[in-house]
Amino acid sequence: MSQKKCPLNREQLEELTKQFPTPFHLYDEAAIRANARALKAAFAWNPGFKEYFAVKAAPNPYLMKILRSEGFGADCSSVPELLLSESVGLSGEEIIFTSNDTPAFEYQKAVDLGAIINLDDITHIDYLEEQIGLPELVCCRYNPGPLKGGNAIIGHPEEAKYGFTRPQLFEGYRMLRDKGVKRFGLHTMVASNELDAKYFIETAHLLFDLIKELSAELGITFEFINIGGGIGIPYKPEQEPVDLQTVGDGIRALYEKAGFTSLDVRMECGRMVTGPFGWLVSRVLHKKNTYKQYVGLDSCMTNLMRPGMYGAYHHVTVPGKENLPHDFVCDVTGSLCENNDKFAINRALPPVDIGDLVVIHDAGAHGHAMGFNYNGKLRSSELLLRENGEVVQIRRAETVEDYFATLNFAGLNNFKV
Amino acid sequence: MSQKKCPLNREQLEELTKQFPTPFHLYDEAAIRANARALKAAFAWNPGFKEYFAVKAAPNPYLMKILRSEGFGADCSSVPELLLSESVGLSGEEIIFTSNDTPAFEYQKAVDLGAIINLDDITHIDYLEEQIGLPELVCCRYNPGPLKGGNAIIGHPEEAKYGFTRPQLFEGYRMLRDKGVKRFGLHTMVASNELDAKYFIETAHLLFDLIKELSAELGITFEFINIGGGIGIPYKPEQEPVDLQTVGDGIRALYEKAGFTSLDVRMECGRMVTGPFGWLVSRVLHKKNTYKQYVGLDSCMTNLMRPGMYGAYHHVTVPGKENLPHDFVCDVTGSLCENNDKFAINRALPPVDIGDLVVIHDAGAHGHAMGFNYNGKLRSSELLLRENGEVVQIRRAETVEDYFATLNFAGLNNFKV
Repeated sequence: MSQKKCPLNREQLEELTKQFPTPFHLYDEAAIRANARALKAAFAWNPGFKEYFAVKAAPNPYLMKILRSEGFGADCSSVPELLLSESVGLSGEEIIFTSNDTPAFEYQKAVDLGAIINLDDITHIDYLEEQIGLPELVCCRYNPGPLKGGNAIIGHPEEAKYGFTRPQLFEGYRMLRDKGVKRFGLHTMVASNELDAKYFIETAHLLFDLIKELSAELGITFEFINIGGGIGIPYKPEQEPVDLQTVGDGIRALYEKAGFTSLDVRMECGRMVTGPFGWLVSRVLHKKNTYKQYVGLDSCMTNLMRPGMYGAYHHVTVPGKENLPHDFVCDVTGSLCENNDKFAINRALPPVDIGDLVVIHDAGAHGHAMGFNYNGKLRSSELLLRENGEVVQIRRAETVEDYFATLNFAGLNNFKV
Repeated sequence: MSQKKCPLNREQLEELTKQFPTPFHLYDEAAIRANARALKAAFAWNPGFKEYFAVKAAPNPYLMKILRSEGFGADCSSVPELLLSESVGLSGEEIIFTSNDTPAFEYQKAVDLGAIINLDDITHIDYLEEQIGLPELVCCRYNPGPLKGGNAIIGHPEEAKYGFTRPQLFEGYRMLRDKGVKRFGLHTMVASNELDAKYFIETAHLLFDLIKELSAELGITFEFINIGGGIGIPYKPEQEPVDLQTVGDGIRALYEKAGFTSLDVRMECGRMVTGPFGWLVSRVLHKKNTYKQYVGLDSCMTNLMRPGMYGAYHHVTVPGKENLPHDFVCDVTGSLCENNDKFAINRALPPVDIGDLVVIHDAGAHGHAMGFNYNGKLRSSELLLRENGEVVQIRRAETVEDYFATLNFAGLNNFKV
């Protein structure tokens, strides 16, 4: 299988649960660092290369601090994400603020931090100028529309709410130039969870061509292109990860052919940075046998929304039973009062017993981050396996008090019905 | 249109936003009470009728206190929901605990409150007995499987994780009887958001027949049937609400024909109780025109997940512009960095201007309750329009501090990378 193996075996996980009861998300620092280095190595030919970690994938400052130490910046689209970046010492152009439908107070915080502002729409040029003032460096987000095919998750670019059209880009950069902006970047993001390396090379190609045209027409120089994120991960065993070296080499060939020398290549991946290196560890609470076989875990959609929300596949393993025949076909469910609260449907597993640990793979991105409190379900903790083998808690589990924090129970007494 | 009109007009809403900035959910107490009374009236023929409000739809104790004053109980499936019920003075058999894949500590809290335990699976008989002990009254959840067709949201019953099969019901009640349980109820829930009144009458029919058979075979008496929830609401203007009197009358006819006299009819609706009587009030922050027209609000999926999560239709109105021609076709978006963060797609609205208030209808159930914090987005406040015209805040908006509550920023300093 292509899934990253959980770094702790059954005995080690059982030992861990004595201190940290299931469910929890477990991240692997060594694997995150190795992957980060592989991405940097693939772009070592470009001295200004920078990956801005898409914070929404795993908004945990401990993970972000590790990524910062690997030279990664942060891609943010809200004030809480900017504050997380600030908390780990990121500042200035180590942060890119790629938001849409943005309120002024969010632009203000981004500008205060000196973050690169990536504008989503031509109308935001005047909005930003009026509300806060234009910074020296501005990036614009390009939406190629029907010129570029989409993929399943992001849909067709012409149906996406993001970005400038091509004519708007020309008009927008002209406005920015005429308003005194001196430094420029160009951004696009047209894929999500895409496994074909060619997609990212083509995206860079698109931006290289566009920069040439924009520079020629407007007499401006671009410091960087940001090809967005969207590098997928092999959620299914038969899938293969994107070969990062292929992406890097392919973009390099185009870069050199186009004669660029000082243009920086930037990315804002999230999923591929932490996704395969985080596991949701849970325990079998019940089994039931009605019209199908069910294995019920002590976790639910709150811990991992993707299967219930998108019908997404996540690989499931039963530690200690990896080598047994996988002939027990079941639905793996959570306890939420929603029938789509299933981690897996008709999945062939080894014989599962109540009390077994179950590991759900590729939960390191868009996992904990997307959890809701529907049905009064509480979000679980996050643990980190350090390089020295120690496991530390990097987020505590939610409590009932957290869940009730926005309610005034004292006021209820004076509420006459 | 069939949508319940927002009880405040543009001027009143503008006045309100001076004290409570958008976005917020606004609930209408008078409308909730009137609807609750209509439901009770439809079942007035059954002295033991009780509606247990499905707390997950709108887990706010202020709303629950109003519903309690109308004689409604609570349908819970987690400890936080049980605690909310307790906070408004509900106890004992005013609460039904309808959960699945249930951990022992949740059963314990339900038993401590004296709630009716509704078992989801035959294995839970032994589990409950071993972990806590069996209460005097037990209800079992029936899943009719392929005998009964499903609907779009709940899927086919045979694919649903819930309930006992028919043979398991016979075996289960026999076990319960032999273990000394004295009082019995029977539950099913096979629809969600269903607008056909016949569906609920048929469901009661199914349970009436089954009770006769179970009673005859096992020599036990049932105190109640619980036909579950699932009464839909007309999200689309061309849809009509379920006529509650038709449901009540239809079930009455079957009840009398079957010769029941002391059997109570119970329900656990959520959506139809608060859904049409809550509105998400938001404001237009931006407009953009690329490959489509976009209207960007100051709210997002976090405030209302259903359109982004299910592609669900929610009616959108622009207060003060209800009577203008609706010829501006646009997508109504939020600011989340997800392309599915759209409240409406290709919707015909009146000409919309930046700064306009926008009302999203039918947000009173599964609205605030389902919100996530993805992308660092914070959940908004809930307001209640009292019967006397006063507006009170019944939940404050989340703050950045709430969002960061489970993180230890102090520990970050000692976290060596």
